[in-house]
Amino acid sequence: MSTEDAFVDMALRAWKLNVDRTGKFFSSLSEEQLLHEVAPGRNRLVYLWGHLAAVSDALIPLLGFSERLHPELDVMFISNPDRALAQTLSGAELTSIWNEMNDALWLGFGKLSASDWLDKHTAISDQDFAREPHRNRYSILLTRTSHLAYHFGQAILTRSR
Amino acid sequence: MSTEDAFVDMALRAWKLNVDRTGKFFSSLSEEQLLHEVAPGRNRLVYLWGHLAAVSDALIPLLGFSERLHPELDVMFISNPDRALAQTLSGAELTSIWNEMNDALWLGFGKLSASDWLDKHTAISDQDFAREPHRNRYSILLTRTSHLAYHFGQAILTRSR
Repeated sequence: MSTEDAFVDMALRAWKLNVDRTGKFFSSLSEEQLLHEVAPGRNRLVYLWGHLAAVSDALIPLLGFSERLHPELDVMFISNPDRALAQTLSGAELTSIWNEMNDALWLGFGKLSASDWLDKHTAISDQDFAREPHRNRYSILLTRTSHLAYHFGQAILTRSR
Repeated sequence: MSTEDAFVDMALRAWKLNVDRTGKFFSSLSEEQLLHEVAPGRNRLVYLWGHLAAVSDALIPLLGFSERLHPELDVMFISNPDRALAQTLSGAELTSIWNEMNDALWLGFGKLSASDWLDKHTAISDQDFAREPHRNRYSILLTRTSHLAYHFGQAILTRSR
């Protein structure tokens, strides 16, 4: 493996580790457990899971793979806070969306070369990218990996000891 | 900047972003606020901060920079759970340790070449590293960045809205 490919491999391993532990945790919860708050008055588990799914689904166009698979998630889990809408999704629905969306992402990741990873994502102009070359696909992968860990750390607080 | 150096730069930016937001959050808390639990019966903020400081301090020898600066943190914040020991540290002490230790890490990071990052850390044998070359310094940097985000996500739950 080339040096460049090794750096890509490291970041993909870190992403996969976080996606897998997050999916394993949330998909094992009952519909009732998904309604638990991570702390008094804070987000419910179902909202956190939907939020993570929505943010990851948005990576599909951001990295230039295809259109969103589930743009409908945003109104439920990004543009509105938890409990603002009566409408939400079941654990079964979120598990299915989670797996489908992560499979699509993984497929797209595998098609990117090391230089593709250092190339701009679709939400930055050529002008801005010329000034800030660190705003590339790889940076998006790293920050979204941290975002997964950030909310997984919150979700895990509900696990009984 | 070479391609290899660009990948290193991305990961260091992600690390720094997480270190800075974590230090800014914890160092702004009063001694009284540091005693708040992130959720009922869960770790207190002071414990999370000390835990993150201890884990980061352990990176100094793990990455081959020098001896630990603050090995005394481990008994308080790693080998024992929160509240097991009466002894702890004040916010002022943790702020000072946090800044000193992160400055030492940043200095060490800056001295590593891209190939140094892909080389083994000090806690893996040559034999194991030959079998699992992904267990390198870079992988440690990425996983510790996720670890910072994981606990920062918990700590932030105590921030009043």
